[in-house]
Amino acid sequence: MPLGEEKNGACDRSIYVNNPHLDSMTDDILYHFNLGTSTHDLPAMFGDVKFVCVGGSPWRMKSFIEYIAKELGLSEPNADYPNICAGTDRYAMYKVGPVLSVSHGMGIPSISIMLHELIKLLYHARCTDVTVVRIGTSGGIGLKPGTVVVTKQSVDSVFQPRLEQIILGKPVVRSTELDGELAEELLQCSKDLAEFETVIGNTMCTLDFYEGQARLDGAFCSYSEEDKQSYLAEAYAAGVRNIEMESSVFAAMCKLSNLRAAVVCVALLHRLKGDQLTSSHDVLNSYQQRPQVLVGHYIKKKLNASKKS
Amino acid sequence: MPLGEEKNGACDRSIYVNNPHLDSMTDDILYHFNLGTSTHDLPAMFGDVKFVCVGGSPWRMKSFIEYIAKELGLSEPNADYPNICAGTDRYAMYKVGPVLSVSHGMGIPSISIMLHELIKLLYHARCTDVTVVRIGTSGGIGLKPGTVVVTKQSVDSVFQPRLEQIILGKPVVRSTELDGELAEELLQCSKDLAEFETVIGNTMCTLDFYEGQARLDGAFCSYSEEDKQSYLAEAYAAGVRNIEMESSVFAAMCKLSNLRAAVVCVALLHRLKGDQLTSSHDVLNSYQQRPQVLVGHYIKKKLNASKKS
Repeated sequence: MPLGEEKNGACDRSIYVNNPHLDSMTDDILYHFNLGTSTHDLPAMFGDVKFVCVGGSPWRMKSFIEYIAKELGLSEPNADYPNICAGTDRYAMYKVGPVLSVSHGMGIPSISIMLHELIKLLYHARCTDVTVVRIGTSGGIGLKPGTVVVTKQSVDSVFQPRLEQIILGKPVVRSTELDGELAEELLQCSKDLAEFETVIGNTMCTLDFYEGQARLDGAFCSYSEEDKQSYLAEAYAAGVRNIEMESSVFAAMCKLSNLRAAVVCVALLHRLKGDQLTSSHDVLNSYQQRPQVLVGHYIKKKLNASKKS
Repeated sequence: MPLGEEKNGACDRSIYVNNPHLDSMTDDILYHFNLGTSTHDLPAMFGDVKFVCVGGSPWRMKSFIEYIAKELGLSEPNADYPNICAGTDRYAMYKVGPVLSVSHGMGIPSISIMLHELIKLLYHARCTDVTVVRIGTSGGIGLKPGTVVVTKQSVDSVFQPRLEQIILGKPVVRSTELDGELAEELLQCSKDLAEFETVIGNTMCTLDFYEGQARLDGAFCSYSEEDKQSYLAEAYAAGVRNIEMESSVFAAMCKLSNLRAAVVCVALLHRLKGDQLTSSHDVLNSYQQRPQVLVGHYIKKKLNASKKS
């Protein structure tokens, strides 16, 4: 049920929810955000949102909102950005102007709870033309540490662009296609910036960080270094350039909701050369800022273009 | 490779890691805890740990350590319990005496990263005879809200006691058996306390909170109220009394590591009657304390018994 609105004679890109039951609910509690339709004026709080950035760590999402506020000239001296979900420790949420920044924890289940509630929030707030970008960290394959990967396709452990979800005990397969045009625009932003390397590649999404990603340093490991190398080489041959744990359900849910979506992750290490994150704290920190800088540049460019038009 | 030690003539129950590669590593960085074998003296910091309580929310795990410190007479006036993982926001960890309290976020992937690093931590610290309990929240089936469920078997979406993990692209099935004796001891603790109802039952573990648990209030829903009721009735008939998102991998990994393990979750609502958490904040909060109270009583009882013997 799209909430289509006519504005300037053109139909906006609307947020879809695909749930006929929502209409019969008198109010909707977004439990893990500690927000709700009867306790909060969601259109007033969020109606102007055009960009949503999501990432695993609450600290990183707070630092992103401070960064983007400065970039957009919306920061005030000594400004503090309160956590909109302060009543819960499940997720953290920050907003400045048209940009919302939300943490999602680690793994498919954690981001999927957040996205269900985010999509309903954007729907209740009657947002239109929203772009959502996941900014995160990942392990790279065949890339110099610090390289940023914009995801072409999110693939599963056998390198297929699909997500199998279980609904009422039965498997349902969903497409993990992302917006190709948006990925190219982000790549162009990296060229504009010329600060670090960015590539477009496939991203493998796993349910586990250790055995699921062929690491040799978990509590359990039943395979050899050779098995690991050959699995990661197969992944590389299938176009996989990095591995993380949220992109598949992010892509699938954004596609179902008509949200323009991209995944931008920095590769913290080269997995063919090792499994442990041995780089210094400062180096890892500087790598983690790259997706923020890239997406910050994109948002600024888009907002400037819309001012001019 | 068990680290068996002889003490008082009896062989302790040791922590297993099942990874031959660990021995050849000069140091081991527990990245998501911000701890490591070359930067921290893990035996000195954690060698005395006998009980580990894990739960989703960092706030709850901090409140648990404050509660257990009081219960065990280990709290000092104005004592603050510093977060041992203060350098990261992925997990929070607190310790008092022989009790460790660790948060794990939401979902199987999030708790599995934590458990890989926790098991390695206990192994590096040469801990023995460790009991691990997950204290959490859940949706109940056929139970009065506030009832505590001690898990008999953690089952999947078709009610089987197994976890399928993907390793090098291939499915591996692991048992989700928990310690039956420990479950009975916990049930007895609830009888000692006589403060709230506790049952032993099966726990369904899902990868999704909305569609994966047959909720009607997610952003997407392709099934009817009748479909939902009939799926949950099937679950009830298979012995399922509550639904949560971490127990299967928790059970599987503890079993592989020789850790005595239990899952103790309070049912916040009766899922046959609704999906939204409409109870007041105070009521939900008091429900969430019940697993803490139960496990606190168990730990006290065990420590008193070992003092006497």
